[in-house]
Amino acid sequence: MTQMLTISETAALLRSADRYLLLTHRNPDGDTIGSAAALCRALQTLGRTCYVYPNFSRTKRYLPFLEDLLPPQDYKPEFIISVDIADPQLLTSDTAHFADAIDLCIDHHTSNKLYAKHTCLDGDQAACGILIFQLIAELGLALTKEIAFPLYLAITTDTGCFRYANTNAFALRVAADLLETGIDANAINEQFFELKSKTRFAVESRLFNEIRYFDEGRIAISVVMDQMIHELGAQDEDVENISSLLRTIDGVSIGISIRERAKDSWRVSVRTSTGINASRICAAFNGGGHIRAAGCTINSTLDEAISALLLQIESEKEDI
Amino acid sequence: MTQMLTISETAALLRSADRYLLLTHRNPDGDTIGSAAALCRALQTLGRTCYVYPNFSRTKRYLPFLEDLLPPQDYKPEFIISVDIADPQLLTSDTAHFADAIDLCIDHHTSNKLYAKHTCLDGDQAACGILIFQLIAELGLALTKEIAFPLYLAITTDTGCFRYANTNAFALRVAADLLETGIDANAINEQFFELKSKTRFAVESRLFNEIRYFDEGRIAISVVMDQMIHELGAQDEDVENISSLLRTIDGVSIGISIRERAKDSWRVSVRTSTGINASRICAAFNGGGHIRAAGCTINSTLDEAISALLLQIESEKEDI
Repeated sequence: MTQMLTISETAALLRSADRYLLLTHRNPDGDTIGSAAALCRALQTLGRTCYVYPNFSRTKRYLPFLEDLLPPQDYKPEFIISVDIADPQLLTSDTAHFADAIDLCIDHHTSNKLYAKHTCLDGDQAACGILIFQLIAELGLALTKEIAFPLYLAITTDTGCFRYANTNAFALRVAADLLETGIDANAINEQFFELKSKTRFAVESRLFNEIRYFDEGRIAISVVMDQMIHELGAQDEDVENISSLLRTIDGVSIGISIRERAKDSWRVSVRTSTGINASRICAAFNGGGHIRAAGCTINSTLDEAISALLLQIESEKEDI
Repeated sequence: MTQMLTISETAALLRSADRYLLLTHRNPDGDTIGSAAALCRALQTLGRTCYVYPNFSRTKRYLPFLEDLLPPQDYKPEFIISVDIADPQLLTSDTAHFADAIDLCIDHHTSNKLYAKHTCLDGDQAACGILIFQLIAELGLALTKEIAFPLYLAITTDTGCFRYANTNAFALRVAADLLETGIDANAINEQFFELKSKTRFAVESRLFNEIRYFDEGRIAISVVMDQMIHELGAQDEDVENISSLLRTIDGVSIGISIRERAKDSWRVSVRTSTGINASRICAAFNGGGHIRAAGCTINSTLDEAISALLLQIESEKEDI
């Protein structure tokens, strides 16, 4: 049973130990990495020993945020903190053994499994980085550029650079405070929200020509075959978020990407507009996720997988 | 000679007359339209008669912002205000005759020609909408949803939804105040920053396959031929901002789109990264614009136009 903590109780706990280790989630994003980096610097500023467990499983782009925050080989932490990790299953294979030994979880997912000894949770905040910002203020620490830069990454990641529906007034005001430290926010905006690799453009261009539309254009399906990935020399991040891209086509309410995993095995990602429950669609295939973004795996031929998905969407249609 | 006014002097002037008309610029964008709509509602709230001159030259997407703010046919204004118009040459053909009769210009372009009787100018603000926000506060008016919604459009348009380098802390704080009125910001974000037409996707896909790279991939050129536009059934807005798109390809410092105007006549749009002066490149062809975004027209064969552009860029290289 976890003990729920307020921001000020959490701040007190962050002063209670000396040797901290911060964990980030599998397939790391800017919120988990930025939150960890900012909190790590804050605890170091308080005179504590603190490191972030290395986590670069799929991408190298977060390396600069953590490079001076990684632990020495023989580091023995006494206090383990997970940031932006709703479920211990989201720990990396390297850190899964910490699952039952996490002293504090700081998170903003209402689906949090409450697995840590203490939990600081606020589901109203747009990013975990917002809670870290509040904690740093509560600890009485100055907002330095070194802390503000990763926090800006955290907030922009989870709000789609202030574009998503979860963007609220507090998130914008926190971002304003971060900008005032003089950080180069534009560097983050360019790298994470503007620039795409040539390969990514090639992937999008290729996929666009092969989109399958159903239901008068309201459903768009892209199939990402291994052969295409090899032909284009694409990396994992070049084929990410294809379902989100499909959803940005005017008139499309349901974007579905189907990625080949093995022969007759397909990883399906579903993104939907307001009013269509992606999680329910995927639950029918033993998958899950959020209301507007969910995933599942289907083992069948490709045609069967597509037919099954369309049937399931049809049966959910009362919600559409 | 114009008289420069502070925000509070401008607010006083906005109380001085009774029958106002607001002008927006040619090829209207969200800043000019949103600023005009918000100011119009504010003046109406003050009990003044105020309308926005209709301006839907290229696009219908701003119609909902102005539909109840258009003047009756026989409207005789006594006070003309231009918003977000740096130069009377940017008036529409319908409103050009007002050029010498503009009582007040409210703008944030440092290049403003100071053509109006009075000018309220603040080049530090990210959008003209920020000045309108300040004026509304100075006038003592409540920030209603009806005023906040177009102002949000104004600010997000000119900051690329808070992504561009001009985004500052004040713009974020103003946006926070606007969100707190309860406006559906997500509706604007989706319509103006997320959704693209199928035709736009087709244009991008087609152009991507034909990009010409130079200087080891640092220069990317797309040629938009009339034939392609006709084949794809594209509208003007489907082929807008192609040079900006090219600039988002990783490694590209200079994005150039070349659009066919007539036989051997090309409209060139140049977008550059920090440190490369697009305006100087275009000035060599009697064009102009901003440091990072400029345009010109070249009359020659296509191959000659491209060669001339590349030579000019080469000669500017000391700045790169």
